Amino acid sequence: MNADIIKDVRRTKPLIHHLTNQVVMNFTANGLLAFGGAPVMAKAEEEAADMATAANGVLINIGTLTSAELPAMIKAAVAANQKGIPVVLDPVGVAATSFRMDAVKQLTEEIQFTAIKGNAGEMAHLVQTPWETKGVDSIGKGDAKEVAKKVADTLQTSAVVTGETDYIYTNGKLFSNQSGDPLLGSITGAGCLLGSIMTACLTTDHNTEDCLKTAVSFYGLAASYAANQQQVQGPGSFLPAFIDALSMDVQTLEERES
Amino acid sequence: MNADIIKDVRRTKPLIHHLTNQVVMNFTANGLLAFGGAPVMAKAEEEAADMATAANGVLINIGTLTSAELPAMIKAAVAANQKGIPVVLDPVGVAATSFRMDAVKQLTEEIQFTAIKGNAGEMAHLVQTPWETKGVDSIGKGDAKEVAKKVADTLQTSAVVTGETDYIYTNGKLFSNQSGDPLLGSITGAGCLLGSIMTACLTTDHNTEDCLKTAVSFYGLAASYAANQQQVQGPGSFLPAFIDALSMDVQTLEERES
Amino acid sequence: MNADIIKDVRRTKPLIHHLTNQVVMNFTANGLLAFGGAPVMAKAEEEAADMATAANGVLINIGTLTSAELPAMIKAAVAANQKGIPVVLDPVGVAATSFRMDAVKQLTEEIQFTAIKGNAGEMAHLVQTPWETKGVDSIGKGDAKEVAKKVADTLQTSAVVTGETDYIYTNGKLFSNQSGDPLLGSITGAGCLLGSIMTACLTTDHNTEDCLKTAVSFYGLAASYAANQQQVQGPGSFLPAFIDALSMDVQTLEERES
Repeated sequence: MNADIIKDVRRTKPLIHHLTNQVVMNFTANGLLAFGGAPVMAKAEEEAADMATAANGVLINIGTLTSAELPAMIKAAVAANQKGIPVVLDPVGVAATSFRMDAVKQLTEEIQFTAIKGNAGEMAHLVQTPWETKGVDSIGKGDAKEVAKKVADTLQTSAVVTGETDYIYTNGKLFSNQSGDPLLGSITGAGCLLGSIMTACLTTDHNTEDCLKTAVSFYGLAASYAANQQQVQGPGSFLPAFIDALSMDVQTLEERES
Repeated sequence: MNADIIKDVRRTKPLIHHLTNQVVMNFTANGLLAFGGAPVMAKAEEEAADMATAANGVLINIGTLTSAELPAMIKAAVAANQKGIPVVLDPVGVAATSFRMDAVKQLTEEIQFTAIKGNAGEMAHLVQTPWETKGVDSIGKGDAKEVAKKVADTLQTSAVVTGETDYIYTNGKLFSNQSGDPLLGSITGAGCLLGSIMTACLTTDHNTEDCLKTAVSFYGLAASYAANQQQVQGPGSFLPAFIDALSMDVQTLEERES
Repeated sequence: MNADIIKDVRRTKPLIHHLTNQVVMNFTANGLLAFGGAPVMAKAEEEAADMATAANGVLINIGTLTSAELPAMIKAAVAANQKGIPVVLDPVGVAATSFRMDAVKQLTEEIQFTAIKGNAGEMAHLVQTPWETKGVDSIGKGDAKEVAKKVADTLQTSAVVTGETDYIYTNGKLFSNQSGDPLLGSITGAGCLLGSIMTACLTTDHNTEDCLKTAVSFYGLAASYAANQQQVQGPGSFLPAFIDALSMDVQTLEERES
């Protein structure tokens, strides 16, 4: 983890334009604010390019996609590509229906994503690798490292495969991360918020590898710190403690963790 | 209450497809996750049937319905009927506008609902029984038992009428439930989340009567447990305590309750 | 602050119809419920006028506006004007894109707003006053008092400009408010919920000046109270404490504050 990246995010407060799912909008906005970024969420096709051009990064998340919303996603992401700012894809539930896979195909054909992030089931589905899924969850087993590499190579991007161990594949190199807590799996949108925080880190001047490693490991560290707070009795009380932790500095999280 | 139903939900983690209102999506997803189910929420007509077919149960909630969203609800619910999985209707605010009543008429004509759940004002409106309402709230007085029976008989379903006392009418029998806490009325979506938890219980192999009684009484018990936690000072702190309680087992809730 | 206004809201429980953004729906509903109002949120054009007519006040917030949603906003607000109930506009992010400014132009041309509320950047943009903004945030400096006066005069309404100091301009008079806490800036929708609480206060029989001053100062007082609670460690734990505080009476908030 490179703590300078987090300091840079908090100094620059990057504006991240989210075209994300309705389930997690509030949680994502609060989580990114706590982390140090500035969220904006807009859905209208008419303003998609304007908002992306005004932003420092764009996140596309297809969790509650409708066909009416896809053009705004494409316009925002194309504008991000034109401006040269990071644009991240979270293909939520892509393995669940052909509607989602068709949308992701269109997105990946028209847009150069800086990074694609998903659980193993979602990421495997992107590259025709068999993997058991259930709704938006990955329940199968397999070689997640290989999936990360295949997504990165096939779609010429950086790939982040989340799970008990997270795998990052970027620029020909593989990294793994073990920080985190099982409670992350018991709140909705834990993966979605990570996508937002990855995008924020990618807006800094540091290299992609450091940005992704920092985002993923800081996120897990904050979860682990929160889960160990005395007042946390379950997923309900974990959530505010986790948002609090996302606003803290690395040193605080590491001291209490040890 | 049959604690085996709750154990079965936690063992099988049923996937519940929600076509629900935007106000409560995050709360519902977190509540169902805490309880032990797996939420998925999708709105596109193109994938409605696919998602329902992949699920173990479907919940339809019209709280923020638009005419563009109705076809997806119908397709998902029809697919649930065809697959023989439970499908529950929550006619939120149906008494408020004719737009909502027209939508519910179409839904109940095309779909065989396993259960319909609402407050007394909503349920009374479904069967042309006068009852005072205000927005999405029921503020009148009347014979809620009779309303439950009439909804069940007229629409050939099981009926759950929520209130200070909840009434369940199924298969010719009436049951009442007294568990709960007034704080449930001070957070948005308390009724909506109950619909999701009812659907999860109905996916088990137990009979409808036991599933509905268990869902309703467990829900109230969890609310009562949460309301009595020391840190709960109002509706804001009640919410995370309630989500925590939904993740606990019956014995824990009952011990602390007594 | 006039504590009778808050008592009146809690006695009458005014029904506020919200056409608001998807990011803050749940938070707004919970905040208004805690404060003592009754939220309803509906988006369908077909029921917009019916719902507004059944309500005691209407709030229009353009945070995630789409062109498909604008007609429902106009119908609801026009119905509010016809019925003579308060209707409040929150022009979220209006400076960010011309799509938003065009929508606000249409809204202000067709509707007589009881009050318009926004941060300085948004409010300045409404009256062609230069002010630096970033997404939905105001980051520039300038004469916020003058902006409040200009919005009120130009659009013949009452204007509330929020910030470290809030300014209210109504009926030819300017008021300022200093209550509040920086943590309000670290949770999403803090401004949006204030719009809802302003609308609730405006439904009482008191004059506009007292209603707006009470809403704004009570809101800040509740934030300050919450921020000083021992369990609040950051924005995540601030949120439930703030919702709790919104449900308390003025005396409790002031005693603990001092």
